[in-house]
Amino acid sequence: MRMYDIILKKRNGEELTDDEIAFFIDGYTKGEIPDYQASALMMAIFYKGMTDRETVCLTDRMAHSGDMVDLSRFGEMSVDKHSTGGVGDKTSLIVAPIVASLGGKVTKMSGRGLGHTGGTVDKLESISGYNTSLTPDAFLSQVERVGMAIIGQTGNLTPADKKLYALRDVTATVDSIPLITSSIMSKKIAAGSHNIVLDVKVGSGAFMKTPRDAEILAEKMVGIGKACGRNIAAVITDMDSPLGNNVGNALEVAETVSVLKNEKKGDLREVSVALATEMVSLVFGLKHDEAEKKVVTAIEDGSAFEKMKEWIAAQGGDVAQIEDTSLLPRAKFSFDVLSDTDGYITEMNAEKIGKASVMLGAGRASKEDKIDYAAGIVINKKVGDKVKKGDLLATLYYDNGSPDNAKKCYLSALKIEPKQKSTPPLIHKIIR
Amino acid sequence: MRMYDIILKKRNGEELTDDEIAFFIDGYTKGEIPDYQASALMMAIFYKGMTDRETVCLTDRMAHSGDMVDLSRFGEMSVDKHSTGGVGDKTSLIVAPIVASLGGKVTKMSGRGLGHTGGTVDKLESISGYNTSLTPDAFLSQVERVGMAIIGQTGNLTPADKKLYALRDVTATVDSIPLITSSIMSKKIAAGSHNIVLDVKVGSGAFMKTPRDAEILAEKMVGIGKACGRNIAAVITDMDSPLGNNVGNALEVAETVSVLKNEKKGDLREVSVALATEMVSLVFGLKHDEAEKKVVTAIEDGSAFEKMKEWIAAQGGDVAQIEDTSLLPRAKFSFDVLSDTDGYITEMNAEKIGKASVMLGAGRASKEDKIDYAAGIVINKKVGDKVKKGDLLATLYYDNGSPDNAKKCYLSALKIEPKQKSTPPLIHKIIR
Repeated sequence: MRMYDIILKKRNGEELTDDEIAFFIDGYTKGEIPDYQASALMMAIFYKGMTDRETVCLTDRMAHSGDMVDLSRFGEMSVDKHSTGGVGDKTSLIVAPIVASLGGKVTKMSGRGLGHTGGTVDKLESISGYNTSLTPDAFLSQVERVGMAIIGQTGNLTPADKKLYALRDVTATVDSIPLITSSIMSKKIAAGSHNIVLDVKVGSGAFMKTPRDAEILAEKMVGIGKACGRNIAAVITDMDSPLGNNVGNALEVAETVSVLKNEKKGDLREVSVALATEMVSLVFGLKHDEAEKKVVTAIEDGSAFEKMKEWIAAQGGDVAQIEDTSLLPRAKFSFDVLSDTDGYITEMNAEKIGKASVMLGAGRASKEDKIDYAAGIVINKKVGDKVKKGDLLATLYYDNGSPDNAKKCYLSALKIEPKQKSTPPLIHKIIR
Repeated sequence: MRMYDIILKKRNGEELTDDEIAFFIDGYTKGEIPDYQASALMMAIFYKGMTDRETVCLTDRMAHSGDMVDLSRFGEMSVDKHSTGGVGDKTSLIVAPIVASLGGKVTKMSGRGLGHTGGTVDKLESISGYNTSLTPDAFLSQVERVGMAIIGQTGNLTPADKKLYALRDVTATVDSIPLITSSIMSKKIAAGSHNIVLDVKVGSGAFMKTPRDAEILAEKMVGIGKACGRNIAAVITDMDSPLGNNVGNALEVAETVSVLKNEKKGDLREVSVALATEMVSLVFGLKHDEAEKKVVTAIEDGSAFEKMKEWIAAQGGDVAQIEDTSLLPRAKFSFDVLSDTDGYITEMNAEKIGKASVMLGAGRASKEDKIDYAAGIVINKKVGDKVKKGDLLATLYYDNGSPDNAKKCYLSALKIEPKQKSTPPLIHKIIR
């Protein structure tokens, strides 16, 4: 078998066999197939696509290119949640304790943030002492004991995907449905959970800009998860504007606490409940309404918040900061962004708001950048809200430099118009 | 400027600017742009094509990536001929002396053979003493004195094309019209001739399989040549079956001698006359019929053959071998391939016949292989000929091993049917 013939076949729009896909992934992982042949194939796949059979095979082979996490001790109780990424997206910190408090085994390996979206691991590290790098044994025994753990990515998981993603990133071959699908799903398959809930974001701050594209991606991922023998569902949720009110690491932790303390309603709680409901439904085989009832109860009776504290403590975090979020890192300076006009907020570009928060120090522009955990934005007016000249739109928090650029960037994200407009639904669709 | 953005732009089907093409070619030649980005761009160009403006710019930039041969001392008399390659294609050895005998300045740098087609340099090296690597000064002064020289590629000509072609060869991005065009034409532009005649082959033994494809390629190349200020024409000639009767280095030299001695008519002479006519027409600004008359006269009155001997002598070759071609390298063994059926030869796959000659030792399967100059095939029956069972189809010449595989390969190239079929024209079209 020759890589040349595999490129030629795909270039001509033909379907690759399982053996050909295996030959490519195995050879590329070992370094026997050079980057320049892999990138030519990626570009051919960008144009010619892959059949579902090819995508399943690619996913499976990438999943098996490195370590496979063994969660068999949890039987069919293990559950994982994955988000395609968005601004202010802190639902993992809410849904994991809810599901764990109900008896699910939540095993979550998360990434760090890069670009305009924040990473779960960065958010958790704003809590003093929180340890994101447990050994595999410690990870498993914590899940057994506490019902959940959230750590950074560990071990040699899906090296084929790591290598291929880095290549696609510099060769303009990222936005291909079969390649996105296999990249995400190979990691989920290798991470071992029997139950998987995907949060597929759609809108200006998401990778998928239209509901139709998000739906296609969600359907492909659910199909692949099933083909790989997993219990899986996808929730398509809005990311046209940021989720919740807080953007920035410690600020977002504080917001999740207020949801779990049953103090805060709104979009963040709604999306979290939808995701947790799907997770509970998959793990316990419950109907949607029954699962939802359990989820809401877990918030209302405080058991989810108790679970959060138990989990943070188990991973070495300072529980006092959870009980009193004013003890979390706080910025030295704040700046109020006021409205200079009357009207309704009709648009809030999530990507631009994410960038504003990076400008304040809350994120990384490049891998080496250090994060300021206290920096970020508290949004006071959201899409649909009426504002008057002089009203507080948002408060910017920062420790260094000037907030001028961030303020400009924040304002450029907003559209204030005389008339109200209809807003997209929070939950677009659930695919099971 | 970033290579990523250039790939993305072409991937999305947009036209690249001159600056972007220059950035890519200059960066890639210097090794600042990695192969994996170049191959992704090549694949995007394969699918999305290039406008004529882009192709001219790419050609020009590749031409200027290394040395440019300065032929200004010959004014508008310098003339070059290029063939897209075929089996038994030895026209350079015929047309160059014809044109030189008429006063043209033929400056030809040729390649070695690889795969099923032979290289002009290999053919000439079958003549004892022939020196294919003259210094630039010796090359120019010979052209001035004798009117022609044929040498191997010299100096650092079009390094960008060398690098890019090697990459395309292993990433299934060779067969793209703008990329083929710019690769061929950049070399011709760098080689410096004011007049250029292209022999674009079409048929089973050629890169272009259909007249339409050959015409598109020819038109693009002529357009680029003109855009670069050159006098240029293309002749589309048949390569459905091999050209002439002899395949193999010394055998082909002998055949060219018999054409220049006015002893041999047929397809080889016809194609050679057509090409030489275009060259003479360009150099002297003559009409087709006038130019053709001069070309035919140069063969008939022996002046072209005299020029051949003068040229071979000037480059150190043994002229006795030209005067008496039985002195050229001769194979120890020969094997007659006989017909086992009656009928008409309706097909002769040029590529398979080329492969049969490589099996006999006449060519290289890989760059490192040594050539047996004496080995090859003399074809006795060509397309359209009537054959009876037991008739001699061809004689195989070889020095080592057994001719069994070559015989099988040769026979598999032929189709013998009860009824005669129409054959494609030798000269499909001339594009000026």
